[in-house]
Amino acid sequence: MDTKDLANKVVNKMYDSDWFSQWLGIELVEVGEGKSVLRMTVRKEMLNGFGIAHGGITYSLADSALAFASNAYGRRSVSIETSVAHVDPVKEGDVLTVATSEENLSNKIGRYKMSIFNQDDKIVALFRGTVYRTSKEWEV
Amino acid sequence: MDTKDLANKVVNKMYDSDWFSQWLGIELVEVGEGKSVLRMTVRKEMLNGFGIAHGGITYSLADSALAFASNAYGRRSVSIETSVAHVDPVKEGDVLTVATSEENLSNKIGRYKMSIFNQDDKIVALFRGTVYRTSKEWEV
Amino acid sequence: MDTKDLANKVVNKMYDSDWFSQWLGIELVEVGEGKSVLRMTVRKEMLNGFGIAHGGITYSLADSALAFASNAYGRRSVSIETSVAHVDPVKEGDVLTVATSEENLSNKIGRYKMSIFNQDDKIVALFRGTVYRTSKEWEV
Amino acid sequence: MDTKDLANKVVNKMYDSDWFSQWLGIELVEVGEGKSVLRMTVRKEMLNGFGIAHGGITYSLADSALAFASNAYGRRSVSIETSVAHVDPVKEGDVLTVATSEENLSNKIGRYKMSIFNQDDKIVALFRGTVYRTSKEWEV
Repeated sequence: MDTKDLANKVVNKMYDSDWFSQWLGIELVEVGEGKSVLRMTVRKEMLNGFGIAHGGITYSLADSALAFASNAYGRRSVSIETSVAHVDPVKEGDVLTVATSEENLSNKIGRYKMSIFNQDDKIVALFRGTVYRTSKEWEV
Repeated sequence: MDTKDLANKVVNKMYDSDWFSQWLGIELVEVGEGKSVLRMTVRKEMLNGFGIAHGGITYSLADSALAFASNAYGRRSVSIETSVAHVDPVKEGDVLTVATSEENLSNKIGRYKMSIFNQDDKIVALFRGTVYRTSKEWEV
Repeated sequence: MDTKDLANKVVNKMYDSDWFSQWLGIELVEVGEGKSVLRMTVRKEMLNGFGIAHGGITYSLADSALAFASNAYGRRSVSIETSVAHVDPVKEGDVLTVATSEENLSNKIGRYKMSIFNQDDKIVALFRGTVYRTSKEWEV
Repeated sequence: MDTKDLANKVVNKMYDSDWFSQWLGIELVEVGEGKSVLRMTVRKEMLNGFGIAHGGITYSLADSALAFASNAYGRRSVSIETSVAHVDPVKEGDVLTVATSEENLSNKIGRYKMSIFNQDDKIVALFRGTVYRTSKEWEV
């Protein structure tokens, strides 16, 4: 199985039982080793008391992107630290895309940066995540 | 109106139109200036591909706590930076409580720390948030 | 060797070849497993272009506290992520004390919070650090 | 005065009284609005108890880059939050270069990412900083 196949099998397996990503309506645009592009549309039930998307929505989208990108190598990887800055308001109906770039990878630690854009290619949030790469492999 | 009344009115107003906090089932246990204690129960639709709560669930609970605690002064406050470390798995049926402590407050910036516990008083996540305090007041 | 002895031996060994902590004038007030209290005085050569202590000074003090507290268990521990918020200006002549508290400890990961105070017991900076605990032991 | 002139005047003024950046041996390679490239060489007195550069050294280099890049617009800007991940050991004699990119800029808040490289173009640290942009201008 080549790396692209493995990445897709692992992420599909994860996604199939990821009820919350499914509730969010996350669509897998592209996945690979250390890579992920996801998309979703903001619904009314995702808004907060300011009438904009709750911070947890963009966080969740990026956190799914982190899980998919880092686990796509086939080794179970778990989040150690994550941070997010919400730089521009997200509104109902906005279509959000998150793109992942791997900043650093060692045997035990992976570091990722996620940029979240809206349908006008405007950055709405900046996310950074660090994972611990266990020695346990995904069975796919 | 004393500070406790104002805090409650602002937070209730925010909560009333915070559809996502309502979807999460967040219950307001206590709010005050720079303070908040919230509670929620983890449902199956909140799980991720590891069979545990999606990181976005605990983040969202803490992010609501940040919004409520910081806006309870009556000034509109917006998140600048947030971070979270998921230190122990959260399972379906777990009852999560987040407690907020204000680490630092100046005229423009507020810094908060949230500890998220499960029903066994075990810490499951550590959250930190920084807000910008605008000069615009909540009308309540 | 009891844990207190081991902690002291490891930290003293680290400190003896820690030229930068020595340049800073860091004094070991107390160390133990997951604990450290350090003190230093701010000198003119530590100031920045605003006439206050360079952010790197308080960071360095806290980063030394992180290294000492986490390595005091006898296992070599290395920093994964650190963050600091400078909440109040530090001036020439200020005597800074950093106190460490362990927020979470698992087999592989340790999480620490450092509070940095001046001589008036005012918090000047808030630091958080996460370490990876290797299986390699200090020889002391 | 054009923006490039202003940037240079502000940064030179800051640098002239930045005793700690001078102690570090920081050299200004390039500065501009929201930009900075700085360089320094690691000396023995900058090492820690592991025989590598103290984490405070790379932090300080990046923190100076943050101050210069964000103040180069002519408005006094102060750090709100900073974080750094040390991804590869830095040794005595290493020549470090930090390059700044502006991730987001609004009227009140600026967000910057600094990459720190060694002489082999290998990334040794990843830094992120957020500043509050005051309305006070530098007099140059």
